[in-house]
This record gives sequence, structure tokens and C-alpha cells, in this order.
Amino acid sequence: MDSEKDFDQVIEEILEYIENKQYFRARDELLKNNEVDIGEILEEVLEKLDVESTIIVFRMLPKDVAVEVFSYLPSEDQVEIIHGITDKEISYIIKELDFDDKIDVLEELPANLVDKILEKTPKEERKLINTFLNYPENSAGSLMTPDYISLQDNMTVGEALAYIKKEGMDSETVYTCYVKEKGRKLEGIVSLRSLVINDDDVKISELMGTDYVYVNVYDDQEEVSEAFKKYGFLAIPVVDKEHRLVGIITVDDILDVIEEETTEDIERMAGVMDDSDTEYLDMSVLRHVRNRLPWLFILMCSYIITGGIIASFEATLSQVICLVAYMPMLMGTGGNSGSQSATLIIRSLALDDIDFSDIGRVIWKEFRVSVIIGIVLSSLNFIRICWLDPGGAGAGPGPAGWGYGPMIAATVCGSMLLIVIAAKIIGSVLPMVAKKIGIDPALMATPMISSLTDMVSVVTYMLMATALVL
Amino acid sequence: MDSEKDFDQVIEEILEYIENKQYFRARDELLKNNEVDIGEILEEVLEKLDVESTIIVFRMLPKDVAVEVFSYLPSEDQVEIIHGITDKEISYIIKELDFDDKIDVLEELPANLVDKILEKTPKEERKLINTFLNYPENSAGSLMTPDYISLQDNMTVGEALAYIKKEGMDSETVYTCYVKEKGRKLEGIVSLRSLVINDDDVKISELMGTDYVYVNVYDDQEEVSEAFKKYGFLAIPVVDKEHRLVGIITVDDILDVIEEETTEDIERMAGVMDDSDTEYLDMSVLRHVRNRLPWLFILMCSYIITGGIIASFEATLSQVICLVAYMPMLMGTGGNSGSQSATLIIRSLALDDIDFSDIGRVIWKEFRVSVIIGIVLSSLNFIRICWLDPGGAGAGPGPAGWGYGPMIAATVCGSMLLIVIAAKIIGSVLPMVAKKIGIDPALMATPMISSLTDMVSVVTYMLMATALVL
Repeated sequence: MDSEKDFDQVIEEILEYIENKQYFRARDELLKNNEVDIGEILEEVLEKLDVESTIIVFRMLPKDVAVEVFSYLPSEDQVEIIHGITDKEISYIIKELDFDDKIDVLEELPANLVDKILEKTPKEERKLINTFLNYPENSAGSLMTPDYISLQDNMTVGEALAYIKKEGMDSETVYTCYVKEKGRKLEGIVSLRSLVINDDDVKISELMGTDYVYVNVYDDQEEVSEAFKKYGFLAIPVVDKEHRLVGIITVDDILDVIEEETTEDIERMAGVMDDSDTEYLDMSVLRHVRNRLPWLFILMCSYIITGGIIASFEATLSQVICLVAYMPMLMGTGGNSGSQSATLIIRSLALDDIDFSDIGRVIWKEFRVSVIIGIVLSSLNFIRICWLDPGGAGAGPGPAGWGYGPMIAATVCGSMLLIVIAAKIIGSVLPMVAKKIGIDPALMATPMISSLTDMVSVVTYMLMATALVL
Repeated sequence: MDSEKDFDQVIEEILEYIENKQYFRARDELLKNNEVDIGEILEEVLEKLDVESTIIVFRMLPKDVAVEVFSYLPSEDQVEIIHGITDKEISYIIKELDFDDKIDVLEELPANLVDKILEKTPKEERKLINTFLNYPENSAGSLMTPDYISLQDNMTVGEALAYIKKEGMDSETVYTCYVKEKGRKLEGIVSLRSLVINDDDVKISELMGTDYVYVNVYDDQEEVSEAFKKYGFLAIPVVDKEHRLVGIITVDDILDVIEEETTEDIERMAGVMDDSDTEYLDMSVLRHVRNRLPWLFILMCSYIITGGIIASFEATLSQVICLVAYMPMLMGTGGNSGSQSATLIIRSLALDDIDFSDIGRVIWKEFRVSVIIGIVLSSLNFIRICWLDPGGAGAGPGPAGWGYGPMIAATVCGSMLLIVIAAKIIGSVLPMVAKKIGIDPALMATPMISSLTDMVSVVTYMLMATALVL
């Protein structure tokens, strides 16, 4: 692989050629790269220059390269190109695309354009395309391709290899082959490895594994990617309710799914609700607002409750105003402690390392961890407050009226210990309970946990202050 | 795939057989599952019952199954089993493991045990093992295997297939074959697909691709997984400084790397520093404390500064005590706004969707998003404060002394707008700057951002209150 820097230079160069309308030179330079990289360069052209130049260059690519490059472009860019080329060119691209890429493109196009394209498609394929377009988004059905090698169990290895030689070019993968019964039921799986290391006269029925793992066409893509991670497959068969083989999913498509699912989880954990896979810069301002405002609003409401709690302790506060100076520390440390625990538990739940039945062990572990952390942080604080802020405040020599010294230190440190323990227990229990009752645990991450621990922190601190200081 | 529920039942059943010492029945039930699942069941046995029973059952498995199951166990469990079986059994397992799994196991074992095992290994292999053990953790070298199919460019397809038939059983993959020059330099790559669809007398030199992507043996595993995600490979060649082929990495191992890297990123974003891949429940309490305490402490120190800022506004606060009630809302909303932005930017940086050169566009986008969000949240707040808290506090009818009404509403709402804008700009710029100067952007996530926005929030709020209310 050329280093990143070299590739950036290549992009620079090509952009310059295009800007100067040296399209042939641009094309020649482009063609020195592999199709994935050409796709990436075209993305840059589209972003930094304009649609027109992108389409000029795209049309100058050899037809077969153009189709492959097209399949690697993000769907927004595909749509832009589709709108700039002729119907004939569109038909050619759609015809030549791998079946699963074809479905992906058709899903993004406006309905009237899809109809126009489908009119020109042979009836058999049109039916298949319509079936695939109807699988729910993020289901196994929406990820699979019907282009696989299917064998019969009474074939010999020699016959199977001859068949693969004939059909192998059009199949998504040839490395796993599928053995079907008469009624299209999936009977077994045989790898190309076992075909090439066995003699030509061995029967497929002797080689095929019948104890294979499969997914259902309506399974969620997350389950599918779990299966790939667990078993390390290159491809997995997808069956319908009657156990008929309807397609296969290959590992390269799963890498994209994993990335998508991870992004969704991470964003949810920060209170961003985004169900598209549009890149940050390509998303409109209003869409960004829509993705972020709802949670900010919900959480803002929770802070109003916290504010109410503080207001109800007005008497305590106005008597010892310096208590306010320690609030950010207690609330912040509570929030951070809770979100550490929540994050660890959310991730462990996602990886199936723990489930609800472990809740007792989790609480016990978090309790011990939080007691140690709480004692350490409290002690450090106690020393700091008594030593540096003998008056009890944070900023140098205490002004008049700030004079409760050790009692304040005791209040702050006692609260700190209780808050850390409570935050860690809340942070670990909430995601587990959420999962149990069918809510995505990722929603129970930092923003949610920290707004809850804020309430707990304020109540703990104010009660303790009322008891100890006054 | 059997549904999760059925598999849980299978585990239950087997655990029961083992508890009742019906080891033969347990083994028979175990062997109905595939090796990955047997591994998972043994993990459960080890966790819920004890080491002794686990080892009894493990030893009853057929030798070849035992080796494969062993390779799927987490390394802590492998070490426990190694300590419970005889030296002869250990030697057998190590000898039979795939090369990359063998290295993984040896890395986890105590040095004296490794020496004992290596003594019995043929000299040639011992040298190779030592080379592999010396590659840095998380480098391409530590992930690769030397078991690949290597061909010469003057072979014919027929000769190549005959060679694969002979060697294919011991190779990690046969689906990508590597063509080497005399000096072990990597010359090209040829897929098994192109071998089986071409005629026997075609020369390898005509089929091989010479424009292949490769990684260097010291590249970080993150770069390797980026290459897999980008190009959708099944395997990637690893070369040394002289461009000699030293091994290959297959996609199934990359799925584990992606999971590991994602976990590390997510944990870092919540202020948990964990460089092991031990599961949550298997990690000791002290280790959990060590992973979490440092960041909590660092952040606690930042809150002390925030506390100091508050203390310096003591005059303002003691005059209008109800200002305190709005602090959690302003600080909390600031923190949440900032962490939304930081999370989106950190993820976009990780996926290479944006880089430092986009910083202007990012700031402009965040500015517009934050102005809209800030105005919406401020307006809602203004209405609420004027309507529900005419006295200016959060809790019902305002007690004596809380009576600055509309000016307080203006202070809170004006601060809210400024805080949201500042938080979103800080949240987006900081991760980009961090990456630019070589710090992991994941460290600039929620805890860090929210402790910074806390300071900004308090200063903004207090200054505005001093100006407007007094």
C-alpha cells in the first residue's frame, strides 16, 4: 500500500489536472490506481470541485472500470452521478453491477427512475429485484446476494469444479458452495478448499457439512454480524421460513455493517439520534439539529428537577454560600464515575460478555470498585480542603462569612464517597435493566446517567450539609 | 443457527450432567455442537463450576476437536487449562495449533513453560516462533501467520492447483495465493477463483495481480484493519523492509481486531484506560480501580478550578441565591452539547471522513447548528421561567429573597445560548487539534469536554448575572 501521504499527493495532482481541464491526463493518472482508490478520488473531485467535472471524468473511464468504481461510491454521490448521465449509461451500469450493489443503488433512487430502469430489465430478474427491494432495511435479506454457487449432492468433485469454472465469474464468492435439495432447501455447505484438496471422483455428499450455521432472511443485521464475529466465516447462507436458500451474505459486506452499527452505538451513547449513514460534513445543519435537539431537551428537563431540589435547600445554601463552590466537583465526579461504569457495562452487553443474570455479580464488583475509588478521592479532597482552603472555599484566602472549615471538608468528602458509590451502581444497573425490558442499553450512557447522578449528588450533598454544617 | 434460547438450554443441560459427574453424557452432548460453540460451553463450565471439571471434560474430547476448541478459548482460560493438563498433552496441543494461534498461546504462558515447550520443537520452527514472539504487540507481525500458499510465476494453473491440493490442508487460507521471486520478494497475488476458472495450461504470470495492497510487518493493527475495511479483502500480505513476504493476515482475525479497537475507543471516550482485553467480570477489582481512578482524579482537579471561579463570584451569588438553582441546567446542557459534537467528530476522524484541513467547515457547521439549538432551548427556558417561576426559582412559589424575575430569565437564557455555542465549538475543535498534535482524539470525549465546558459555563453565567441582575 502506498503511504497516505503519497495518495494525498496523487489526489492533489488529479484535482489540478481536472481544474485545468486536462481531462485525458486526469484519466490516465486515475487509471493507475485500483478501483477502490479511484472511487475515493472521485469523491474528492465531487466534494472539492463540482458535479460536472466529476461526470466528465467518470464518463471517460473504461466501462467495466466505471461500473466497479460506481459500486464503491457513497450512495449520495451515486445519485448525483446518475442524474448527470444518460438513461442508456444508467441502464448499462445497473445491468453490470453485482446484484447486491444493484439493490443498494435502486433503494436510493427516486421511484420513477427505478420504474424506468426496471422496465428494461428481463421479467425474471425484475421479479427478483422487487423481492429484494421489499426486505426491511437492516435485515439479512437487505444484505444478501442471490449470486452464489449451488451444487447437487450427487455431483463429483470434478463435476463441481467444472461447474464453478463455468459459473464462477458471476458469483459473489466461489469459496463456499451451497448444496441444495430438489425443493431449493439448503442441504449442506462445501468449501472450495475441500474441493481442490480432494480427488475428482469424490462425491459432494461425502464432503459437505450439514451442521452449518445460517441466518433467517428477516434476522437483524446485528445478529448476522455477531455470527460472523463468532465463527469467522467468509460467507453465511440466508434461508426463508421453509428453510429454502434465498441468498448469501459475504464477510466484506459485514465489515461495513459492523462499522455502521458501531457508529450508531457510539452516537447514541452521546445522545445523538442518527438513523442515516450520511457523513458528518454531508449532513445538513437542520438534520444535525434534528439529531441532537431532542435529547438535549429531555435532559434539560431533568436538570430543572435538579434545580428544584437545589432551590428547596435555599436556606442551607444562603447560610453557607461556599457550599456552592464544591457542587461542580461533586456533580462532575458523580457523572464521570457513573458514565465509566455505564460504558463498560453497555460494551460488555453488546459483546455478550455479560447478561442480566450477572446483575448481582456486577453490582458487587461495582460496589467494591466504587468504595475504593470513593475513599481515595475523598481523602485527597479532605487533605486539600483542610490544608489549602482552611476557610472552606476554593479561591485563596476565604472572604468574610466562609468559615466552617473542617465540617465543610467532612460534608464534601462524605458526600463524595456516597455519590461515587451511588453513581457506579446506577451506571451499571440501568443499562442492564434497559436491555432486559427491551430498551437499547446505549441510551443509558453518559448524558442519561450523568443527569440522574446530578440529582442524586445534589440531594446527598444538601442533606449532608444540612445535617453536618448547620 | 439455533436460536439463542435453545443454546442456553444446551448449556444448562451440559452443566447439569457435569455437576452430576455424568461426564460421558456431557461429552456426547458437547460433541453435537460445532467447535466454536463447544469452546463457549467450556467457558461457561469454567465460570459456573470449576477448573477441575472443565479439565476432565476437555480431556475427554477427541484430540483434534480438543485442539480446535482450545484455540477458541479466551487466553485466561487457555492458561488455566494448560496448568491442569500434562506436559505431553500441552506439547500435543501446541504442535497441532495453527501457527498464529500457537503464537497467541505462547505469548500468554509464563516464560519457563514456553522454554520447556520450545525445547521439544524442531530447530527451524523454534527460530520462526522466536521471531514471531518478538513482533510488538498490536503490530501486523503479531497478527500474521507464515502458513500461506506460495507459487512461482512460471507455474501453470494445473501445476498450481496440484500444489494447492498437496499443501492446502496446512495453509491458513488457500483462497489467495502468493507469487514470490527468488529472493522471497513478493511479486504478485493470484486468487483461487482465477485459478479454478482458467484452463490448466495458463501461466500464473498471466493471472497474477502485481498492483496489490500490502502492509508492513511493523504497521499498527489499526492500519491493517483500515485496509481490510477499505478494500474488502479476505487476506492481506505482510512484507518486511526488503519487501520480502513474511506472512499473511486473514479477515477472520481482523474481525477480532476491529472489536478490540472499538472497545478501546469507546472505553477511552468514557475515561476508562484499559490496555488489556480482559472481560469485565474477569477483571479484578484493583485492576478496575487502576483503569478508572486516574482520569477521575485528573477531572476532579479541573472541577476544583471551576469551584474557584464560583467562589470568586461569591458576592453575586449571596445576593441572588436563586441563581444557583440554574447552574446544573446550564452546566449539564453545556456538557451534553459539547459531548455530542466531540463524539461525532471523534467518530468521523476515526472513519477518515474528515481531517484537520476540514476544521473551518466543521466550525462553521457547528456554529450554525449550535445557534439554532441554543435559540430553541433558550426560548423554551425563557417561557418556562417567566411563566412558571415568576419569582425566579425552580420550586413552586418563590420564598423570600427570590425576586429578580425577568432579569434572571434573561441571564439564564442568554448564558444558555452562549454556552451551547461555546460547548459545540470546543467539542468539535479539541478532538481535531488533539489528532493534529498526535494525541488520541478519543481522550477528548465527554469527561474532558464536559469538565472544560463546565468552566466556560460558570464564567459565562456569573459574568452575565453580574452584569444583568445586579
